[in-house]
Amino acid sequence: MNFELTRDYLQTLQELIANDKNSEVQVLIEELHPADIAEIMDNLSIEEAKYIYLLLDGDKASDVLVEIPDDDRTRFLAVLPPEMIASQFIENMDSDDAADVIGELPEELQEKVLANIEDVEQAGDIVDLLNYEEDTAGGLMAKELVVVNENWTVQTCLKEIGAQSEDVDEIYYVYVVDDDQKLKGILSLKKLILNSTSTKIAKIYNDDVISVKTDIDQEEVALVMEKYDLVAIPVVDSIGRLVGRITFDDVVDVMREEAEKDYQMVSGIAGDVDSSDKVWNHTRVRLPWLFIGLLGGILGAQVIGAHEHELTIIPMLAFFIPLIGAMAGNVGVQSSSIVVQSLAAGIPDFESISQKLLKELLIALSTAFVISLCIFIYNYFVSGSLNLTWAVSLSLFAVMIFASLFGTFIPLILNRFKIDPALATGPFITTMNDIIGLLIYFLIASLFFQF
Amino acid sequence: MNFELTRDYLQTLQELIANDKNSEVQVLIEELHPADIAEIMDNLSIEEAKYIYLLLDGDKASDVLVEIPDDDRTRFLAVLPPEMIASQFIENMDSDDAADVIGELPEELQEKVLANIEDVEQAGDIVDLLNYEEDTAGGLMAKELVVVNENWTVQTCLKEIGAQSEDVDEIYYVYVVDDDQKLKGILSLKKLILNSTSTKIAKIYNDDVISVKTDIDQEEVALVMEKYDLVAIPVVDSIGRLVGRITFDDVVDVMREEAEKDYQMVSGIAGDVDSSDKVWNHTRVRLPWLFIGLLGGILGAQVIGAHEHELTIIPMLAFFIPLIGAMAGNVGVQSSSIVVQSLAAGIPDFESISQKLLKELLIALSTAFVISLCIFIYNYFVSGSLNLTWAVSLSLFAVMIFASLFGTFIPLILNRFKIDPALATGPFITTMNDIIGLLIYFLIASLFFQF
Repeated sequence: MNFELTRDYLQTLQELIANDKNSEVQVLIEELHPADIAEIMDNLSIEEAKYIYLLLDGDKASDVLVEIPDDDRTRFLAVLPPEMIASQFIENMDSDDAADVIGELPEELQEKVLANIEDVEQAGDIVDLLNYEEDTAGGLMAKELVVVNENWTVQTCLKEIGAQSEDVDEIYYVYVVDDDQKLKGILSLKKLILNSTSTKIAKIYNDDVISVKTDIDQEEVALVMEKYDLVAIPVVDSIGRLVGRITFDDVVDVMREEAEKDYQMVSGIAGDVDSSDKVWNHTRVRLPWLFIGLLGGILGAQVIGAHEHELTIIPMLAFFIPLIGAMAGNVGVQSSSIVVQSLAAGIPDFESISQKLLKELLIALSTAFVISLCIFIYNYFVSGSLNLTWAVSLSLFAVMIFASLFGTFIPLILNRFKIDPALATGPFITTMNDIIGLLIYFLIASLFFQF
Repeated sequence: MNFELTRDYLQTLQELIANDKNSEVQVLIEELHPADIAEIMDNLSIEEAKYIYLLLDGDKASDVLVEIPDDDRTRFLAVLPPEMIASQFIENMDSDDAADVIGELPEELQEKVLANIEDVEQAGDIVDLLNYEEDTAGGLMAKELVVVNENWTVQTCLKEIGAQSEDVDEIYYVYVVDDDQKLKGILSLKKLILNSTSTKIAKIYNDDVISVKTDIDQEEVALVMEKYDLVAIPVVDSIGRLVGRITFDDVVDVMREEAEKDYQMVSGIAGDVDSSDKVWNHTRVRLPWLFIGLLGGILGAQVIGAHEHELTIIPMLAFFIPLIGAMAGNVGVQSSSIVVQSLAAGIPDFESISQKLLKELLIALSTAFVISLCIFIYNYFVSGSLNLTWAVSLSLFAVMIFASLFGTFIPLILNRFKIDPALATGPFITTMNDIIGLLIYFLIASLFFQF
């Protein structure tokens, strides 16, 4: 059943809530997918959302809780008693979701909730998971998985799977381990169905299994799963014991997050925000980069101020200040973003930084030549000053070369030092290039005019 | 087995190839995943890549073919006889991959390849798939799926699945249809394993199935699968008959593509490129936006030229040209990219364009106030001219308000007319805002100075 949230649906729902029509609201929402209910709640006022939430039964309520945005969830849980969080929500969740939800709570509340979880095994799993760094394979994985021993038969397996799979929503692969819990391989359900019940697992499992270690970065996990088209990947500890699995849906979230982060960086937005957020949130994420731009503008004013004398003699020099700035900025963003995108794609790459810079130099030479030639022709016919024509074209050429190399070099260097290279895209690189571009412009101009 | 491509590995391989050590090369690559082999080939010369490729057996060769980049593949296939393409590659592929590969070939070659496919059913499937638009659910789906009739028993099902699953790499869900092939629901393998063999399918399948129609846009498919965490989604025709399925790996590719496209747009890159591409490719994708920047710079020069008189009287006006341009650009990119990102996330949204603009106005007022106040204080103490102080601060305020509203309005309008809103990010919006910003600046300055 495909659900699409419409304005009419929302209005009907809001009227029913306003008139306290409990059972009608329940009828309207009870068949919906948790993701749809979360979407509806996101479009209601906090009171209306709470009204709906309290009508859900335990299982559904915890599924919905996993789907609503982090900060709404934390705010919502903060007012509930720890026993209720533990018994109504956490106990119905997969271990990875439970660990995420608990991890977001204030430290004090975390301990109280953990102490109230009745299922000791589950509480232990959650505590284990909370020990891993949030953005590693360990922080992403769930403890629920279906494991069989290589010495079992298909029949034993099927029985065991029946017992184990109570806790597991979807079985994508059955993992095969030895007596020491070390990961040996995987077994697809298809194989299990198609073999006779007396077959030994050791004979039919696939030992060509791709796994990740717990301390691998989540971006790396996403790249591996994407490269090999894996729907789930087993996670092993440092001596190869199977400790969890990561499913594609978690990795899709990671990919989306990383792509959004890089996009925000290049657009000068310092944090997560979407158009439905409050004015204050928008202001908060925009101001940091605007301050950088402001600082750049003030430095630019000082560079030009230092050349006021030249400007009074040749006012036409001022005409091309925006051109120099814009091109320095554009070229810088282009080259830095290509570096960042290639690094994010995880393509192995055996060129050294100097080889890359050499190549960027060739690209810069060709683009700068074309663009500078255009402005040369324009100025030759329009400005009437051959000196100005040469000064502007040569400056633009030099600025574009510099901006290209700078835009390539900075993210590569950041990456070398394990700093997020995306920091060097967007407003940062435009601002830097703007100022240095102006310096180059006045330097070259001074060679053509006697000031 | 986790493979990591190293420089040493590549060197060893290249030496073996140079010395024509057939069997040693084979040993080195035969255990590798097709995605790894494709990665290796991408790091070799064309001759070396061909050498390796010809050592692969049929099945592996077609798997590798699916993994190598589109344009390499087309170039490679163009020189092979159609019979060989059909028998060695296409016949080993899933229908969706086969349709993609054939769809990339020149029209004439397409027909020859299709005519040479021996399996008539497969050829028919491919022809069917080629009829769908490439970027719709129909263009993305594969014909291979496991279907059972609602009237069967678990036992019949298991037998049928055994027969059908020969063509299907991974079974994620078994689809349940009625006698008219209309999709009724899904059945997880888990359910099938855990129920007795005599149970009727009609009793155990889940009728709450989310599907997409063939003509739905691929971005929409990705959003649906991401929202509901689906590993595969069934595709139905206009009367609800099951015609194919889309798996998560295809959708991950779509997500990656769309995110990259938006990222390139905001960074001013007109096409797919990564750092390993040739200089010419880089030049080609960068020049279009640089021309827009050039045009903007020339228009900017004319705006300033029209106010040359003012600049000779108050040269300090020139100092703040970069500030005005940079802030107009930054603000425009920020606001347009938030709109684009929110639209791409597919969050339902019931605000009208005028409501959005009103909100953006509030954001703009608050950020512009803070930034303008800063520059007011700076100029008040540094410039020594109260007129200049007011002129610059008020201009900056007005420019930021305008740039915000413009950056929000343009992508929303493009989206309303079904044009990709991402067109309005990056260099386009910066350039427009630059020029209009200068106009506003000189207009406001003229109110404070008697020229």
